[in-house]
Amino acid sequence: MGENLTIWTYDWVPEGPRGFVRDLRLRWGAEEAGLSYDVDTVPFEDRPRSHLDRQPFGQVPFLTDGEITIFESGACLLHLARKSDILMPSNASGEAETLQWVVAALNSIEMVTVPWWFLRLSGDRENGLSGWLDSRLAHVEAILSEREWLVEDRFTAADLIMADVLRVPEIRARGDRPATEAYIQRLVARTAFKKAQADQLAHFAAADESRVRR
Amino acid sequence: MGENLTIWTYDWVPEGPRGFVRDLRLRWGAEEAGLSYDVDTVPFEDRPRSHLDRQPFGQVPFLTDGEITIFESGACLLHLARKSDILMPSNASGEAETLQWVVAALNSIEMVTVPWWFLRLSGDRENGLSGWLDSRLAHVEAILSEREWLVEDRFTAADLIMADVLRVPEIRARGDRPATEAYIQRLVARTAFKKAQADQLAHFAAADESRVRR
Repeated sequence: MGENLTIWTYDWVPEGPRGFVRDLRLRWGAEEAGLSYDVDTVPFEDRPRSHLDRQPFGQVPFLTDGEITIFESGACLLHLARKSDILMPSNASGEAETLQWVVAALNSIEMVTVPWWFLRLSGDRENGLSGWLDSRLAHVEAILSEREWLVEDRFTAADLIMADVLRVPEIRARGDRPATEAYIQRLVARTAFKKAQADQLAHFAAADESRVRR
Repeated sequence: MGENLTIWTYDWVPEGPRGFVRDLRLRWGAEEAGLSYDVDTVPFEDRPRSHLDRQPFGQVPFLTDGEITIFESGACLLHLARKSDILMPSNASGEAETLQWVVAALNSIEMVTVPWWFLRLSGDRENGLSGWLDSRLAHVEAILSEREWLVEDRFTAADLIMADVLRVPEIRARGDRPATEAYIQRLVARTAFKKAQADQLAHFAAADESRVRR
């Protein structure tokens, strides 16, 4: 289709984050939209130094699209969404709604889930963010009780990123939220998600094998 | 200029957040771009219920643009940015860079600053997020030591939102970061910021007076 897209991720990561490394958001988006892409890597081991010119926080993913390099998974996904009506409606109101829900996932939900999870990993299982987290998750449950998709009654990039934020097991296990759980299950059952996740797992498994051979 | 923009904020807020309520990001953006706009309000007192149809987390701001309603300050700002080259270059690479830095401000910096500040307000002055915060602020300092603006050597919406995230007094007081401090000072010295902030302060001061008269 004439694209020249490369999704950049780590050459290897430990078991823990596999299936959740955020290159998955871009693989998933590209698969949904039928955009062809390559995957290339930066070293995990010295990530603080190796690619700071392209991602100033030493993280992945970033995306190259011809001459353009762009980081932040949310920004990369919005960049891809501009290429395909499958990810974002091309009418003005559908575009505004997709934008609002992508930013809500990043700045109203993930802003609480990730720091909560970070504190929990540090040993603080119930922590000072738990009340805020539960309140935000209750809002999400109320929203998802009334609709199947966030924008225009059909899948968009907004659902992709919201589901990816919500599907973290520790978040998913938090409280009985049937509409949210059904939403996550609906999203991760999509062919494009399953391919993106399988490809990511295979990518890191191959890296294990090449380490053994070394 | 034919716009029909309305920025929605609260009718009143306590002293504490004045000058920082996020409608300022939209006022600032509209002032920079020379877009005309009205300001309208929703009640602060019963915010959990009063406008959930338009902002499902009970927050402000949201923006109406003719038939379109959009919430999340970052999304509203990107929506405004599409209307003016002053906020976002209209070439593909300038647009991608603006998008990446707006999302970085929201999802890599504010994702740490706001939860850190929330824990601090709850009484936990040094908390489990302090190390992560300092590391992110050090990255920002390194970036701002090498450039005056985030995108294309000139002001964009990316600087607007990054400066707004960084100018919180408790964050600003954290460590000696001269490039970041100079950046913030450069941004808040802009005519459009000063007008936006003065207008917000006047809006809430007028609400105080009307409360006294009641």
